[in-house]
Amino acid sequence: MSAPSLGPALRVALLGCGVVGSEVATLLTTHRDELASRVGAPLDLVGIAVREVSRPRAGVTGTALEALLTQDADSLVREADIVIEVMGGIEPARELLLAAIASGASVVTANKALLAQDGPTLYAAADEAGVDVYFEAAVAGAIPIIRPVRESLAGDQVERILGIVNGTTNYVLDRMASEGLDLDDVVAEAQRLGYAEADPSADVDGHDAAAKAAILASLAFHTRVSLEDVAVEGIMGLTADDIAWASRTGQVVKLLAIAERTADGVVVRVHPALVPETHPLAGVRGAFNAVFVEASAAGELMFYGRGAGGAPTASAVLGDVVSAARHRVLGGKGPIESSYAQLPVLPASQALTRVQIRIDVQDRPGVLAKVAAVVAEHGVSIEAVRQAPVGEVAHLVVTTHAARQDALDKTVEAIRGIDVVDRVVSVLRVEGI
Amino acid sequence: MSAPSLGPALRVALLGCGVVGSEVATLLTTHRDELASRVGAPLDLVGIAVREVSRPRAGVTGTALEALLTQDADSLVREADIVIEVMGGIEPARELLLAAIASGASVVTANKALLAQDGPTLYAAADEAGVDVYFEAAVAGAIPIIRPVRESLAGDQVERILGIVNGTTNYVLDRMASEGLDLDDVVAEAQRLGYAEADPSADVDGHDAAAKAAILASLAFHTRVSLEDVAVEGIMGLTADDIAWASRTGQVVKLLAIAERTADGVVVRVHPALVPETHPLAGVRGAFNAVFVEASAAGELMFYGRGAGGAPTASAVLGDVVSAARHRVLGGKGPIESSYAQLPVLPASQALTRVQIRIDVQDRPGVLAKVAAVVAEHGVSIEAVRQAPVGEVAHLVVTTHAARQDALDKTVEAIRGIDVVDRVVSVLRVEGI
Repeated sequence: MSAPSLGPALRVALLGCGVVGSEVATLLTTHRDELASRVGAPLDLVGIAVREVSRPRAGVTGTALEALLTQDADSLVREADIVIEVMGGIEPARELLLAAIASGASVVTANKALLAQDGPTLYAAADEAGVDVYFEAAVAGAIPIIRPVRESLAGDQVERILGIVNGTTNYVLDRMASEGLDLDDVVAEAQRLGYAEADPSADVDGHDAAAKAAILASLAFHTRVSLEDVAVEGIMGLTADDIAWASRTGQVVKLLAIAERTADGVVVRVHPALVPETHPLAGVRGAFNAVFVEASAAGELMFYGRGAGGAPTASAVLGDVVSAARHRVLGGKGPIESSYAQLPVLPASQALTRVQIRIDVQDRPGVLAKVAAVVAEHGVSIEAVRQAPVGEVAHLVVTTHAARQDALDKTVEAIRGIDVVDRVVSVLRVEGI
Repeated sequence: MSAPSLGPALRVALLGCGVVGSEVATLLTTHRDELASRVGAPLDLVGIAVREVSRPRAGVTGTALEALLTQDADSLVREADIVIEVMGGIEPARELLLAAIASGASVVTANKALLAQDGPTLYAAADEAGVDVYFEAAVAGAIPIIRPVRESLAGDQVERILGIVNGTTNYVLDRMASEGLDLDDVVAEAQRLGYAEADPSADVDGHDAAAKAAILASLAFHTRVSLEDVAVEGIMGLTADDIAWASRTGQVVKLLAIAERTADGVVVRVHPALVPETHPLAGVRGAFNAVFVEASAAGELMFYGRGAGGAPTASAVLGDVVSAARHRVLGGKGPIESSYAQLPVLPASQALTRVQIRIDVQDRPGVLAKVAAVVAEHGVSIEAVRQAPVGEVAHLVVTTHAARQDALDKTVEAIRGIDVVDRVVSVLRVEGI
């Protein structure tokens, strides 16, 4: 069939014109005809709100887009059908999006911090106003993960999500593994190459991943999960030795965002974990992201792609814009984020996990028996033990079966107190089994 | 927020009650409350059309579902709001779905054969009637791939799709690689284990994959691609030796469904191909499926999961049912399958690809020079050559750079005619580079 006739143009406002914003503006312009065909109406970019109009911007300054720059975001959002927010930060993004929704616009945002902190306020306002909130770009960049979880799995039950959702830390862990380097050296290298921010703390401390975990958990479990509910550990404590031992035991170290349903509720956490080399997440290299989903009927799914960057993120934004725009043209509305299930959100101490404990022990008979006895006393069972003599002291690597985190913590404490144990060198959780 | 109040129930009809159908019926019943929350209205399963009511069916016979069985599919589809078709085959599925659409129902189908042959008729009828056609389950089972291509990438441009979309052949190739077995032995084993049909020809000949390739290509390129447009080669010619040589050159053999945009149009093909071990598709094992997508802005994406089976397929069906049902409750309509781009569909001879040619040659000086000269004469350039003496005859493995398929075919023919060439042992395309 040929192209259907087009309806009246939709007015699109863009908030922010950084790496992602300029790419969104460019795609809206260069793909104008195709977008109109897909939506059923042309999308007119009517303005780009920025803090300072006069600053030079690659891809914008000196082009027709430059004339669209404005510092008056407040007026802009009130005259748009669709508002795209890629400015980041909590305010003024939050107030502008609420104003846009109140005046009847649908909104598309890539703002993970805002959604993790105050998503439910936005969702409720949008439901009230009968408009859409889309945010595919807020988690894992170009990877379609929000739409599958909200829509494709709507007739299934998500049991667990394991995500590599921070490209910087994944790159760092990858380089540590491939080059045997220490963490500080790789972080410095990543900063030199522009893969890590000048202040990489949001990445390496796990806070970026935690915001994404909160958003995914909220959607997957129809439960309000906010950033404060997420237990976070970053990668700073990891050593080259940890990575080498992971490899020796057929595993890799990944920073995982984990959201899972237990018998009693939902647990959401971010921490480094050992993943078997045969697990699909183990092969996710460099700055790529991947989200592994276990659902009751669908089984295991994985979504893989670029987690950041101007063009990939802009692709996700545009997909959302098309969906929102089609609803303006054809009627209808995207999914309503109802937290109808509202499962209890539990502390990470109640998570079920496994740990691999590396211990420096004295090299004499009976050591293993003592350690095993202490582990058993805590109701934890041992899956495997490896012994490797390292110079003077012997090195014991104990991997447990699944147990509650609090029981595992107590077990490790008790191991520290054993007379033949010199030092607990490291404790890493094992996931993806 | 709490559960919104529910609208009047939607009437759901199910056509077919095999492995997938019975699972869909069970999920509709056991997840009734959650589905109602997500849709905004209860979903009432009002009938299950089967050819023979009295046949025993696991999960249905002896349960409350048994009373819903009917042989009168014609009446059933006319009284439903949503019709789910999981009976397979062209007729009567086609007539029943068209009747359902004509009487105002939205339809959800898992029927790849029907969509590959006559999808556009269904899409046009649905657009005319203002109802939805959803078909996530028709390609790659539980993996959300249709929705991402139709919606998430709607603001981007898909350049290429490489899919492992047939679990049986992937299992067979995997076993050949891991056990060094011959194809016939593994196919026999797969049949014994129930992984392959009694007549495995639709799988091993590539026709199942071809139907999925046609559906994906149509959506990705907004162009009518039917089964006849897909060039198909199965895996029957592959030997244990091919697989061993793949491994020796750092590659694996996969049956790929390939749809790509070239400068002149669209080429769609299914054939075995060598894929580098480092490519994300290389790690897709056993009966899993994966679809790798290259898009202009998003870059590389991959979608991975179970490609078949009752529960995974039912999960995909239910996700579609929820989307269609939400449109009945809230208004709106799913994507319209407009083939507005209608790019030329080109024969596979115009595909750009690489080949790895294994040749038995006479073991004397100047052989490589002769082969290289013939390749160059055809405007094809060589990427790598490996020589390995195999007993009496020497074995040459030539890998080309990208060239058009027809030029590569002529090159291989010319190599066969060289006096020092005893035999061209195998020619395999190399993809994913």
